[in-house]
Amino acid sequence: MKPYASRIAPLLLSAAMALATPVLAQQSAPTPPAMAISAEIEATAAALRDRALQGNIAFKFIEGVTTEVGPRLGGTPAEKKAAEWSVAQLKALGFQDVRIEEFQIDGWVRGAESASVTAPFPQAITITSLGGSVATPKGGLEAEVALFKTYDDFLRAPADCCKGKIVLVTQRTVKAQDGAGYSATVRNRSSGPAEAAKRGAVAYMLRSLGTHSHRFPHTGAIRYEAGVPRVPSAAVSPPDVEQIERMAARGQPVRIKFDIQPRLAGPSTSYTVVGDIKGTDKADEYVIISAHLDSWDLATGALDDAAGMGITAAAGKLILDLPQKPRRTIRIIFFGTEETALQGAYAYAKAHPDLLPKVFAGSESDFGAGPVYQFLTRFNPAVLPAFAPLRRVLAHVNVGPGPNTALGGPDMTPFREAGVPVFTLQQDGRDYFDYHHTPDDTLDKIDPKNLDQNVAAWAATTWVLANMDGELRPIPDPAAPRRLQ
Amino acid sequence: MKPYASRIAPLLLSAAMALATPVLAQQSAPTPPAMAISAEIEATAAALRDRALQGNIAFKFIEGVTTEVGPRLGGTPAEKKAAEWSVAQLKALGFQDVRIEEFQIDGWVRGAESASVTAPFPQAITITSLGGSVATPKGGLEAEVALFKTYDDFLRAPADCCKGKIVLVTQRTVKAQDGAGYSATVRNRSSGPAEAAKRGAVAYMLRSLGTHSHRFPHTGAIRYEAGVPRVPSAAVSPPDVEQIERMAARGQPVRIKFDIQPRLAGPSTSYTVVGDIKGTDKADEYVIISAHLDSWDLATGALDDAAGMGITAAAGKLILDLPQKPRRTIRIIFFGTEETALQGAYAYAKAHPDLLPKVFAGSESDFGAGPVYQFLTRFNPAVLPAFAPLRRVLAHVNVGPGPNTALGGPDMTPFREAGVPVFTLQQDGRDYFDYHHTPDDTLDKIDPKNLDQNVAAWAATTWVLANMDGELRPIPDPAAPRRLQ
Repeated sequence: MKPYASRIAPLLLSAAMALATPVLAQQSAPTPPAMAISAEIEATAAALRDRALQGNIAFKFIEGVTTEVGPRLGGTPAEKKAAEWSVAQLKALGFQDVRIEEFQIDGWVRGAESASVTAPFPQAITITSLGGSVATPKGGLEAEVALFKTYDDFLRAPADCCKGKIVLVTQRTVKAQDGAGYSATVRNRSSGPAEAAKRGAVAYMLRSLGTHSHRFPHTGAIRYEAGVPRVPSAAVSPPDVEQIERMAARGQPVRIKFDIQPRLAGPSTSYTVVGDIKGTDKADEYVIISAHLDSWDLATGALDDAAGMGITAAAGKLILDLPQKPRRTIRIIFFGTEETALQGAYAYAKAHPDLLPKVFAGSESDFGAGPVYQFLTRFNPAVLPAFAPLRRVLAHVNVGPGPNTALGGPDMTPFREAGVPVFTLQQDGRDYFDYHHTPDDTLDKIDPKNLDQNVAAWAATTWVLANMDGELRPIPDPAAPRRLQ
Repeated sequence: MKPYASRIAPLLLSAAMALATPVLAQQSAPTPPAMAISAEIEATAAALRDRALQGNIAFKFIEGVTTEVGPRLGGTPAEKKAAEWSVAQLKALGFQDVRIEEFQIDGWVRGAESASVTAPFPQAITITSLGGSVATPKGGLEAEVALFKTYDDFLRAPADCCKGKIVLVTQRTVKAQDGAGYSATVRNRSSGPAEAAKRGAVAYMLRSLGTHSHRFPHTGAIRYEAGVPRVPSAAVSPPDVEQIERMAARGQPVRIKFDIQPRLAGPSTSYTVVGDIKGTDKADEYVIISAHLDSWDLATGALDDAAGMGITAAAGKLILDLPQKPRRTIRIIFFGTEETALQGAYAYAKAHPDLLPKVFAGSESDFGAGPVYQFLTRFNPAVLPAFAPLRRVLAHVNVGPGPNTALGGPDMTPFREAGVPVFTLQQDGRDYFDYHHTPDDTLDKIDPKNLDQNVAAWAATTWVLANMDGELRPIPDPAAPRRLQ
């Protein structure tokens, strides 16, 4: 029944909306006629969508960067190689003015890492350094573990909970379609090391924030606080955390010894790649489609975020292949060093203050390669009814309407904070955190069919935004906190 | 519909067989009346089965050995600890004469290991040393890779295929309920290193024999040949093999550098644990239920083979809890050092030549913790019809009849070769090779419900064999090749 319904339902919906939408639009908010998306724009968007489903370059792009570059940590020669690779590809696809914009970061590089339980039942455990962590003393650090079932339990523990100990927060990350599970636990990682140090702990560990049950640790960035000691910090794989919990349940103290030797690499150059599809009568207005260039170092970053690069490049390529040009300039950006603190996005926004008011709308694809199921916006609420034609186009690929609370993707944060209208083509991320930030984020985890659906949604949406009349500002709540990284 | 059918079908079958079996038995092979399994034995077997489903000690046993001992490679102090742990547990459960039997093996211990592609696209890859492999020169060994899609392609390659190269066989292992996929590819691992050396290769690698698509390599034993150079040998994780295949598809030579430092540890003591449930009028006949004590070193060996230890110990415990004693002695054995070449089983058989003719029947549980779906035997064909009562009992837990081609489990090999009747309670192993021999073989992969069903089948079968009259010899084809390890 489902295949039939999914083929037929969009057609019925489309027919119904064709009749209903103008009326609805008039009733709910008086939209200036200039906001209308013309029938011609809608038809081209639908054609782009259908062409995307017939095949596009997204998978090939992802296969290319993950194979020929591989892991590409921000601020390393591998990221530079990824930038050069991307420049060559985007030029070959027909993007204009393709260039690299360099910026400086404080580099960090993973070193050797090992860990074991030393008591009561000695055995090796699987950990990885958290991004930005200082090293342990050479030869390792050993201490008793203070276990906490949740991060709140840890924060509310008595003042003497942790002195001289290794804090280990064992809270699980819940699987959720929109990533809400990770949003809830990500502070366990980012803020945990400083909070542990404030309580006298000698190190901080947590259950990996992934939703898998494999023996992979899940890395990610931490934020030390000024004036608070910097303690070595690591993620433990889910099965190993459960092993430690079983040991602790027997009532004896558990001791861990671990040795991590990451290196604070000092000032390092990172790279953002930019290319354009020049507009016509509104060439000085911009629609930004983006992804991030860097990946964590443990894997080839196929999902995070070669997928986003492939999806946006493929959407741009379909537009480049059209006989007509867009009215606004479509700018593709692959931001450098997203993973540690959105340094690439902030550096880009800072370097181009004049650009920000000219950005009509922007978004980043940075949530893997699952199918898009929802179109979210953060536009002036008055303009939303005018988007009925785009909603009609997206309904054909099973993308439903979403609320006006889009964040636009991590690297849109500085743009949104500057008042830029953002949108999110929300992907189904139920499986995303099974792989994200682990050694398992590799090409085989991508379903090319889902990728095609993403490209269809991106190509259609980008075309509509680049060609419609009007203005999407002012946006509600530009300072909404960012969600995922 | 299925739950209803599975509840009802065994009852119908049971009723039908109660009428049909004596007739069938008379027609197909004249079974001596002494072979009959009495109604009382059948009733007790059914009661044991039902008690197992209400709860048993299997999961707790597995939780215990994997938590309190962890990985337990044959011939290491960890295996000794596992032996001492098991002795204490079996004694506490009520087994009699619980003891450790020591034997000598040539030890092998994994060392540091790392690998990377050095050309055309330098990046780290995930490998692990194969069990028994010699080390590379310190600092590593680098060479061009010779790729082969299948092991047969490799064997049939021209004589000059591999000189100075690293052979890499990329053949996949197929998922199969009975492990037939692994049976087909296990020679790729065991014989590959010697075959590569004969062709002048400097090292041997293969796609991990696991059926997963995670970034875990799958270890396992190799067999060098006398007079053939011993080349360093390693398994590569499935996603990394696919990465190398993608690089090779671009037409340039692929070069790998790898550094493995396993150590040939020389003469080492290994440990087999034995315990008894003494019989009554046939106490000098034995039913062996067994598992293996050792595990690979990469994980806690929850599936391979703590599961077998827990299942057989729990089955024995249910029998120990009965008011009556078995007629034959039930011997539980946890063999040491199964993983490298069944050394524990061969040492035990060699040390107890007088025992072998007295073993009525034997089996090993060594295929994980999936549900049992089939009862296979290797008994005198004339006695098979007499097993109808046991088949009736097993049908209630969805165990169907199987052919008379049982191997009995890896450690039954020397017993079978000596003419001992063996049986197999065949488990569904479709997922087994997703974890087997990888770092991911941990407790969370075990479903306690399936474990209960295993214990039910083992308790019932063991009781029937320990109490029925007759003789199961001579067995067909005692020298059938062993299948899995």
